[in-house]
Amino acid sequence: MWDVAEELKAMLVFAEHRYYGQSLPFGVNSFKDSRHLNFLTSEQALADFAELIQHLKTTIPGAENQPVIALGGSYGGMLAAWFRMKFPHMVVGALAASAPIWQFEDLVPCGVFMEIVTTDFRKSGPHCSESIRRSWDAINRLTRTGTGLHWLSEALHLCTPLTNPQDGQRLKDWISETWINLAMVDYPYQSNFLQPLPAWPIKVVCQYLKNPNVSDSQLLQNIFQALNVYYNYSGQARCLNISETSTKSLGSLGWSYQACTEMVMPFCTNGINDMFEPNSWDLQVFSDECFRQWGVRPRPSWITAMYGGKNISSHTNIVFSNGDLDPWSGGGVTKDITDTLVAITIPDGAHHLDLRANNAYDPKTVLLARSLEVRYMKQWIGDFYASRRKKH
Amino acid sequence: MWDVAEELKAMLVFAEHRYYGQSLPFGVNSFKDSRHLNFLTSEQALADFAELIQHLKTTIPGAENQPVIALGGSYGGMLAAWFRMKFPHMVVGALAASAPIWQFEDLVPCGVFMEIVTTDFRKSGPHCSESIRRSWDAINRLTRTGTGLHWLSEALHLCTPLTNPQDGQRLKDWISETWINLAMVDYPYQSNFLQPLPAWPIKVVCQYLKNPNVSDSQLLQNIFQALNVYYNYSGQARCLNISETSTKSLGSLGWSYQACTEMVMPFCTNGINDMFEPNSWDLQVFSDECFRQWGVRPRPSWITAMYGGKNISSHTNIVFSNGDLDPWSGGGVTKDITDTLVAITIPDGAHHLDLRANNAYDPKTVLLARSLEVRYMKQWIGDFYASRRKKH
Repeated sequence: MWDVAEELKAMLVFAEHRYYGQSLPFGVNSFKDSRHLNFLTSEQALADFAELIQHLKTTIPGAENQPVIALGGSYGGMLAAWFRMKFPHMVVGALAASAPIWQFEDLVPCGVFMEIVTTDFRKSGPHCSESIRRSWDAINRLTRTGTGLHWLSEALHLCTPLTNPQDGQRLKDWISETWINLAMVDYPYQSNFLQPLPAWPIKVVCQYLKNPNVSDSQLLQNIFQALNVYYNYSGQARCLNISETSTKSLGSLGWSYQACTEMVMPFCTNGINDMFEPNSWDLQVFSDECFRQWGVRPRPSWITAMYGGKNISSHTNIVFSNGDLDPWSGGGVTKDITDTLVAITIPDGAHHLDLRANNAYDPKTVLLARSLEVRYMKQWIGDFYASRRKKH
Repeated sequence: MWDVAEELKAMLVFAEHRYYGQSLPFGVNSFKDSRHLNFLTSEQALADFAELIQHLKTTIPGAENQPVIALGGSYGGMLAAWFRMKFPHMVVGALAASAPIWQFEDLVPCGVFMEIVTTDFRKSGPHCSESIRRSWDAINRLTRTGTGLHWLSEALHLCTPLTNPQDGQRLKDWISETWINLAMVDYPYQSNFLQPLPAWPIKVVCQYLKNPNVSDSQLLQNIFQALNVYYNYSGQARCLNISETSTKSLGSLGWSYQACTEMVMPFCTNGINDMFEPNSWDLQVFSDECFRQWGVRPRPSWITAMYGGKNISSHTNIVFSNGDLDPWSGGGVTKDITDTLVAITIPDGAHHLDLRANNAYDPKTVLLARSLEVRYMKQWIGDFYASRRKKH
């Protein structure tokens, strides 16, 4: 965006989403209970953006008659797309990067996300995904006994030792999320999005996971080396904390509430098309957990009812970009819907790689994507001025 | 709608707006305070309609893959138009009858509404609007003294006598609103929308208002005869109640709150282009009154920010119909915006005459409007099936 803004002589505005960062409507009480959280919805966030744009247009000299473009990645990409759908009078178009607007209800198969994670590992080194697939049973065997739990805690350098067999599930969840995060940030150069990481981090991880046919203890020692790539690339970590998978700045608390109300995304695994333990999507279990944590029940059909699901062809001027490596591309728009509702796929791209700053190691595919995106933006801006000229 | 539904083999669904009729979210406490009223917004009402349509589609056999059309008149017409704008995946089109979607901010001159009221009276009988214009000063003179107040109360058969000069303003407001309502319901046949009325009621009213050059007392006696057409066409009223202008079923309480939050409609008069006393639009006075009554302050730019104001050309498939007699047509869409955002004007039509049942006295203009509206609906339905065929 920084690069393109200069080219288009644009002002960049970063709008903070309510209940994230410093935008806390009730200060420290914002997450206190469901009454205080009641204003945390995507609809309210979109209305905030509308108010913000109107405010900027009326207060910044020269801004009033300028075209505006919405840009965002991930959830921000969904918001960018939805903003163009709901407020087409406010923005001439939207770039929705890695926006899984279809990761709801049954719009895509619930297993597609983990299948993409698995593919990333399978392609990044021989026997890599197979090693991970075998690791779960190894953990299951080791966590059955006190000796095994003790050994595992030492071997994985855990900050807090595992003490009972139930800790095994927490451990597996944490490891799974690590592989997921690696799939999201499998960038072609050193980066620091969720964690500081080397270039193509899954390739680095997979160097430790070449041999699935080893003893449980050897396999888990290899897994430790692999996890270390993600959690200790800097070499500063003394131990691994299984309560954390990413830097805390992304506001996981707000997202947890949103996932329990509007943003109900079904995920599942079958252990065959993916490298994880089989786990079906169970709305009831999910709902009970939401009620326990937040005192609310999810509305699984809400997003589809509000934003149209697959039936969005009457809208215009949205570019959906997706990287093939990104598990979120499974719930994204990866085929053109109409002439002005277009998909750009980036074969070697991870999660919204196209929104990142230019880099010498950028694959050609992302350079092409960016130039296409800019071409669309110029088109929208040109159309805006053309229609203004027609009016006057 | 009843006639057309049969022709189109359609199911008719009348959705009750939250906080109106029996749809009271907090029962008798729904209007208790601004906390209970907080859920009374047009956005929430639209979301209700989306939920309702989704519910109907999933529970009524055969409904799932059927096209839906939104229809409404007046505020309901605004909702119909906005629903198509915000939920184009839910309805293939909308008929927005007498929907003043531009009666906000400075989108139209604030005086246009009362100018149309005046035109209706001017055209309905010689010196009619001039008689009304002169009546205000006559009332001002009469309400200055106790004798005058007493005489006026008797002459107008008021249920509660006027006791102080401030009552004069209430009297004038009530009479003004009567003329406004007559302009809205100036239908070509006997009707019973706001009150039971004869055909072309303004013509009947104006038969009593042919001579503006009479004494104050004679003028007010004539005004009484004119008011009687509206308030006592049935001949049952023993006295006139200046606290009421229409039957109570329209939910004026809910609208009063909405007008004090989102639905801020600027109105003004200058006494030159209209037959009323000059009165400028004063947002501060309006806001203070809202705060006194509801504990809330209006947001005059909200509707424009949410629904686009005049910048709505990216939407499709909305018919805006307006009767020339209807004062609300001043804030309506009376010229085509695009090929699919079209205006239908009805020269002899009052407030959403086109939505009323067929009548032998319907002017040709409204018959033409209705047939055009049906043609557009058939077009939307045809397009819907054509695009479905293309997909499969």
